[in-house]
Amino acid sequence: MQTTRTHIQSRDTEMRARAARVIPGGMYGHQNAGTLPEGFPQFLERGRGCHIWDVDDNEYIDFMCSYGPIILGHADPIVDAAAAEQQSNADCQDGPSSRIVELAELLVETIPHADWAVFQKNGTDATTLCVSIARAATGRRKVLVARGAYHGSAPWCTPRPAGTTPEDRAHLLHYTYNDLASVEAAAAEAGSDLAAIVVSPFRHDAGLDQELVDPAFARGLRELCDRAGAALILDDVRCGFRLSLQGSWEPVGVRPDLSAFSKAIANGYPLAAVVGRDSFRDAVRQVFATGSFWFAAVPMAAALATITTLRDTDALVRLAAAGEALRHGLATQAESYGVRVRQTGPVQMPFLSFVGDTEYQRARLFTGEAIKRGVYLHPRHNWFLSAAHSQEDVNDALEVTDVAFAKVREAFGDD
Amino acid sequence: MQTTRTHIQSRDTEMRARAARVIPGGMYGHQNAGTLPEGFPQFLERGRGCHIWDVDDNEYIDFMCSYGPIILGHADPIVDAAAAEQQSNADCQDGPSSRIVELAELLVETIPHADWAVFQKNGTDATTLCVSIARAATGRRKVLVARGAYHGSAPWCTPRPAGTTPEDRAHLLHYTYNDLASVEAAAAEAGSDLAAIVVSPFRHDAGLDQELVDPAFARGLRELCDRAGAALILDDVRCGFRLSLQGSWEPVGVRPDLSAFSKAIANGYPLAAVVGRDSFRDAVRQVFATGSFWFAAVPMAAALATITTLRDTDALVRLAAAGEALRHGLATQAESYGVRVRQTGPVQMPFLSFVGDTEYQRARLFTGEAIKRGVYLHPRHNWFLSAAHSQEDVNDALEVTDVAFAKVREAFGDD
Repeated sequence: MQTTRTHIQSRDTEMRARAARVIPGGMYGHQNAGTLPEGFPQFLERGRGCHIWDVDDNEYIDFMCSYGPIILGHADPIVDAAAAEQQSNADCQDGPSSRIVELAELLVETIPHADWAVFQKNGTDATTLCVSIARAATGRRKVLVARGAYHGSAPWCTPRPAGTTPEDRAHLLHYTYNDLASVEAAAAEAGSDLAAIVVSPFRHDAGLDQELVDPAFARGLRELCDRAGAALILDDVRCGFRLSLQGSWEPVGVRPDLSAFSKAIANGYPLAAVVGRDSFRDAVRQVFATGSFWFAAVPMAAALATITTLRDTDALVRLAAAGEALRHGLATQAESYGVRVRQTGPVQMPFLSFVGDTEYQRARLFTGEAIKRGVYLHPRHNWFLSAAHSQEDVNDALEVTDVAFAKVREAFGDD
Repeated sequence: MQTTRTHIQSRDTEMRARAARVIPGGMYGHQNAGTLPEGFPQFLERGRGCHIWDVDDNEYIDFMCSYGPIILGHADPIVDAAAAEQQSNADCQDGPSSRIVELAELLVETIPHADWAVFQKNGTDATTLCVSIARAATGRRKVLVARGAYHGSAPWCTPRPAGTTPEDRAHLLHYTYNDLASVEAAAAEAGSDLAAIVVSPFRHDAGLDQELVDPAFARGLRELCDRAGAALILDDVRCGFRLSLQGSWEPVGVRPDLSAFSKAIANGYPLAAVVGRDSFRDAVRQVFATGSFWFAAVPMAAALATITTLRDTDALVRLAAAGEALRHGLATQAESYGVRVRQTGPVQMPFLSFVGDTEYQRARLFTGEAIKRGVYLHPRHNWFLSAAHSQEDVNDALEVTDVAFAKVREAFGDD
């Protein structure tokens, strides 16, 4: 543990200054540390299991897992060996390798609602393609999305409007997550032009307490889509493979028509996938979507290794157990300090908030104290566990969060 | 050379049958071999330099270079070593590595109109982001694109309308490449709402004879954008780094405001970049665009190795020389057989068409005969040379094209 080691960030500071000259704002996108509390490094150097090192060689226990992609641990030896072996033959070629067929077969075997699979690079590619497939299949235009949900950063879905036009989301209608009446109302507004409903496995909006799906809500969406002849699209980009290998709503008992995957599919190698039902095959063939690196073999080899490891080992059981231990430990600590918190979301993708913390001051203090002592959490975004988080790692992290809770209590009292 | 070896494709046939069950249509996108003449393999296994092997171990001299990404040759040892070293530390992390700063600095040093750089995954990400940046910078909506030009496969630009809505391209206006009057007319229609003009370095539309840019046209676009306060966006995704390391219009003497790069930037590793002028920095900061793998370090390490190799060696000179030799050899052969052809586009990205070949029958026969004898060309898309194409490789390929021209002459006479 790094709790007694000095947290020096001179190299990070130097790199931020260099970055500011050649990258607008010094950094951009979801990994911009400029929005995080002081003490968070912007630049990272190395990862092993659930341990990461910044450019100043500070070590952290990583509870963000690269915002989701790392599911078996950083530099997983089995995945990296499969990727390296594929790289020694070829990666990006004039056509795909046989890996694309093997991976599509594996997804079809593994995911009950998958009759076929196609691959892309970004999660945004996958969600966008799902919408296009639904429109091509139905000949309709309207798409329902939950208010405030994140489905990617293309102009039709980016959470910030700068650079987009109103027409980019001309055919979007909004509902409230877990509120079936609001979905019915939006569907009524779409009328006979309803192409699809897009939904996340649970409500994982940044900065808000997370909300698990009400199974009745999920079943209601399925029935509505069946009745309306619209496609039910599950945006499984953030949750996929972490909550269930069969798709995140399989335990809920509701099967979507189309699912978008990315992030954890290849333990960090860049890949996205859309899977779906047979009735959408023709629509997939009609839509033209492609990319220079979409058929590259290395990420597919990595995905084969990742998914078979998840399938053939107790990785997901251990991942959930680590999440349970973290949740239990945090709850005990918060109570002991009289700090009121809420822990929401699945334990595999936990979120911690402080009661009354409308401006995130407590969350920022808490995560700022944790990062300085070697634990990488996030004040506003859900965290991610991996199969590499041992009970010892969780215990080490809890030593640090104990200090962080003490600091919150000290600064804010029991208010 | 494989000219005397039997061209067996039993494994490819088997894999196509398996693919048809789990991938709609068996394959999709620009690498769908279903649209290519008989004899083209769908699945590829290995690449070294300019040589590639399919899943039946047939060897080919590759003149597609993975549709552009491969610029130094498949499995370039310097690039692959840099990538492997980076991979041994980390790739996809909670933040970027220092490589992002080093790469942005290298692009700013190398490309005269680049004051900053930001990175993505797909060429489509880069062109889309350029449009968003231009709209954010100008507060305007209209974007001019050349009729028939390819700028990616997102709904706003995909060449096939299935799955899109008219609103996706509500603010696009069209001009004819190299026709300044048509640009002026479109700009007049946009009026005070003109945000940007998007243009390719040359007209490289698939299936048509390629057309180099008229320098007066390029200068006219620059003047028009300056006059209108609009952004000039160069879509350098396909050409970038192959024609000039400084941006493809630097030799033309016209500097865009924003450029989109991808394909050859990292010799096959997945990366895209937008570079631009200082006056667009604030707009970049306003636009939210990001992706799970955009900040991964391995492709950036590969890009650093690729670009410094291109800068510090005679790679681009050799690449162009190989293209010159191919063009000269093909011209001599065509003339000797009395087959009338046109060779268009830069020699680094050549295109061959047959006079009067409106249905591409001659092109399909020619490339179909070539592939069976170990030369990978394309009947409708421009080809790509790499620095790994030696004069001997070109001569070996010309032995094959000589036979292919004879077959065209035999089938079509001198008509």
